[in-house]
Amino acid sequence: MNVDELKRIVYEENLNLVKNDLVILTWGNVSMADRELGVFVIKPSGVSYKKMKPKDMVVVSLKTGKKVGGKLNPSSDTPTHYELYKKFSKVNGIVHTHSMFATAFAQAGVDIIPLGTTHADTFYDAVPCVRKLNKKEIEGNYEANTGLAIIKEFKKRNICHLETPAAILESHGSFAWGKDAHEAVKNAITLEAVAKMNFLTYSINPKVKKIDQYLSNKHYERKHGKNAYYGQK
Amino acid sequence: MNVDELKRIVYEENLNLVKNDLVILTWGNVSMADRELGVFVIKPSGVSYKKMKPKDMVVVSLKTGKKVGGKLNPSSDTPTHYELYKKFSKVNGIVHTHSMFATAFAQAGVDIIPLGTTHADTFYDAVPCVRKLNKKEIEGNYEANTGLAIIKEFKKRNICHLETPAAILESHGSFAWGKDAHEAVKNAITLEAVAKMNFLTYSINPKVKKIDQYLSNKHYERKHGKNAYYGQK
Amino acid sequence: MNVDELKRIVYEENLNLVKNDLVILTWGNVSMADRELGVFVIKPSGVSYKKMKPKDMVVVSLKTGKKVGGKLNPSSDTPTHYELYKKFSKVNGIVHTHSMFATAFAQAGVDIIPLGTTHADTFYDAVPCVRKLNKKEIEGNYEANTGLAIIKEFKKRNICHLETPAAILESHGSFAWGKDAHEAVKNAITLEAVAKMNFLTYSINPKVKKIDQYLSNKHYERKHGKNAYYGQK
Amino acid sequence: MNVDELKRIVYEENLNLVKNDLVILTWGNVSMADRELGVFVIKPSGVSYKKMKPKDMVVVSLKTGKKVGGKLNPSSDTPTHYELYKKFSKVNGIVHTHSMFATAFAQAGVDIIPLGTTHADTFYDAVPCVRKLNKKEIEGNYEANTGLAIIKEFKKRNICHLETPAAILESHGSFAWGKDAHEAVKNAITLEAVAKMNFLTYSINPKVKKIDQYLSNKHYERKHGKNAYYGQK
Repeated sequence: MNVDELKRIVYEENLNLVKNDLVILTWGNVSMADRELGVFVIKPSGVSYKKMKPKDMVVVSLKTGKKVGGKLNPSSDTPTHYELYKKFSKVNGIVHTHSMFATAFAQAGVDIIPLGTTHADTFYDAVPCVRKLNKKEIEGNYEANTGLAIIKEFKKRNICHLETPAAILESHGSFAWGKDAHEAVKNAITLEAVAKMNFLTYSINPKVKKIDQYLSNKHYERKHGKNAYYGQK
Repeated sequence: MNVDELKRIVYEENLNLVKNDLVILTWGNVSMADRELGVFVIKPSGVSYKKMKPKDMVVVSLKTGKKVGGKLNPSSDTPTHYELYKKFSKVNGIVHTHSMFATAFAQAGVDIIPLGTTHADTFYDAVPCVRKLNKKEIEGNYEANTGLAIIKEFKKRNICHLETPAAILESHGSFAWGKDAHEAVKNAITLEAVAKMNFLTYSINPKVKKIDQYLSNKHYERKHGKNAYYGQK
Repeated sequence: MNVDELKRIVYEENLNLVKNDLVILTWGNVSMADRELGVFVIKPSGVSYKKMKPKDMVVVSLKTGKKVGGKLNPSSDTPTHYELYKKFSKVNGIVHTHSMFATAFAQAGVDIIPLGTTHADTFYDAVPCVRKLNKKEIEGNYEANTGLAIIKEFKKRNICHLETPAAILESHGSFAWGKDAHEAVKNAITLEAVAKMNFLTYSINPKVKKIDQYLSNKHYERKHGKNAYYGQK
Repeated sequence: MNVDELKRIVYEENLNLVKNDLVILTWGNVSMADRELGVFVIKPSGVSYKKMKPKDMVVVSLKTGKKVGGKLNPSSDTPTHYELYKKFSKVNGIVHTHSMFATAFAQAGVDIIPLGTTHADTFYDAVPCVRKLNKKEIEGNYEANTGLAIIKEFKKRNICHLETPAAILESHGSFAWGKDAHEAVKNAITLEAVAKMNFLTYSINPKVKKIDQYLSNKHYERKHGKNAYYGQK
């Protein structure tokens, strides 16, 4: 893949956030990495989705996290993407949004636990609500520290970031990721849908419990396991 | 009807799920059976609604449940459709979705009971929440067992599947059916609407009770009874 | 006005229900009366909004309530419209819907009380939840009895049907009316909006009380009073 | 800028309210002031968004609050806009709506407090719920008194109207403002979004608390502070 192709994909997947009602105004961004090129491409900061063009996408080095191509400033969340790409070596697409229901769980400080097969088809475990950053972390390299907090939370809870490719951030919003930008956007769409379903489910039955582990296993395996039989070969 | 016609109808009714906001991504499927041809036609597994074409629909034998036409793999839920067609001999259209409100009731493990005439116009009884499958059922022929669990639940509760053409599945989603794919989709639309109405009603008045039986009778009969006077002849 | 004009208006206002998300499938109807012609025109029963044409609208006598023009059967709710037109002599447009939030209040058996100026701008009093019909009323002339129950409720509670041009019906749905079909549809839109606002308001603050009477007076008068100053002359 | 340009902008930003689902029917208005011209331009009262044209916008004197150009009557809320422009000398755009979630908080009498960074990015403090007007204020110059009540509330609570450019009005609706009409509409969009997020958050966790002050500072400063690094130069 060349950089122009990467820019076009990142541009289109950013617009997909709008089409799927995950962002309003300029509150979200998608990036995609190419490990061979040694870069990731990301939305410019604060630019309207309607006005931006593929060539406005910004190129950032996977080695330094600094801008290496494009005229505009990259998203202010670039250091978060950078930390995640550094640590999650098989992840090549990342999405950040303030989508309504996922953000409500983030603001409430509540994990998005598996309450049905819609969740289990995409996320093996609970999507964790990453703890709040402290004063020092916020006043320091805030955006980089956000990425590091996600990484630590997955490690601490022993959740695999490939099996559960999303997190919500207390008092903030959501991140989702995948093998490319398209899969990351699909995971962000799913995250918002299961957040909404969990919201409704708790309202109907506040005492609902996490689904049985064997049901989680079955649904996750039929889509993502060795003997997966969902979809086409 | 010939198979090509059946494929075109099934294709269009699958798109109707999207138009009526019952599915996102690839989370749903519609099938339709022709008893004379001895087959049913169903959406291919995991294929995008936008990209699929009528010819991509898959033909399955009503005798064996196996694919007998089409290049792609049928929906992974095909064995559920198959079990229902085998048992429900007047049903020739089936819909499966993870629509938001119906799925929330499924996740909460709560029946969708008749709280108004919107419900009674289409569903004579409560739409039952079918009990969870156990470990053995899930690890065995999971999708076939899902169909069998629906059939058992209607029998156990003495609900007529023609008078109440839908079910929700604990921890999972919803099924609706009808005399053809079009009616099945209409019933799926109604199911989601009454699920949303029940959700709102419980929030306003948690102690609300099922409507009077004579009101259920009246509304069901005026649409579906011998002396029905709703609609055109 | 001639009958063809009346049919065109009724046709268009029925489509307005769909555009404003007040109905799905065929769950709603609009009628409009012309007192000089001695008729009202109403949507045909169970006909799809997409397929119907202006000429399909049905003409009903204001004297007898019977069909006097058009090929199709009129809405099954025609006797309700008829009773209201007979009693409410200044009302010439009526709308029936199962719109989500108004119907949820109807199912919950709870009045839609004035909680803000959005309500007061259109409805002077609470929109009353009309009591359930009894077995005899349902098994008799059900739809006519629905109209009579609305009329009785307004009388019993001493609510003026011109100042508060809407009602919700326990276990059923909503009616709104006005000086013509267009105003009736506007009142139905407002009813659904204030129902949604009340729903949200109760969820935030379950103890909220009806607004001050002098605020109701002010808003109602500035739009509808002798010295109204809202809008254009 | 000349008056025709101002009219065109005000016209377009009024339509933006509709596109962003902040108003239905005629329930909202946008104005924009030009301090050099000594006027502000505002939507005419009660005119449909679909039918109005740029030339229908009404010109009002910033000195007297009286109409100085245009054929139609200005919005009935004009005196509220006038009081705010008089007092808030750097504000040149004002929006009034009855958007669903902001109005629900207004009806509930509850401030929209900062529960996440979505809020902090635009509003430094809680968006205050301005106390109800009393009988005298309502029966007197109601709309002017509404503006004065907003001004007093910000003063009493020591909230800066430039750092927190919006208010909700008990029993009524919302106002938002900015340096021009476009920014005011953006702030109204944000207000509705954070109101919805707060609604959902309280439903998930009724005991949630306001975010840490250092997080508010960080997000507000990165967008609006001296060393802001969000967006493009």
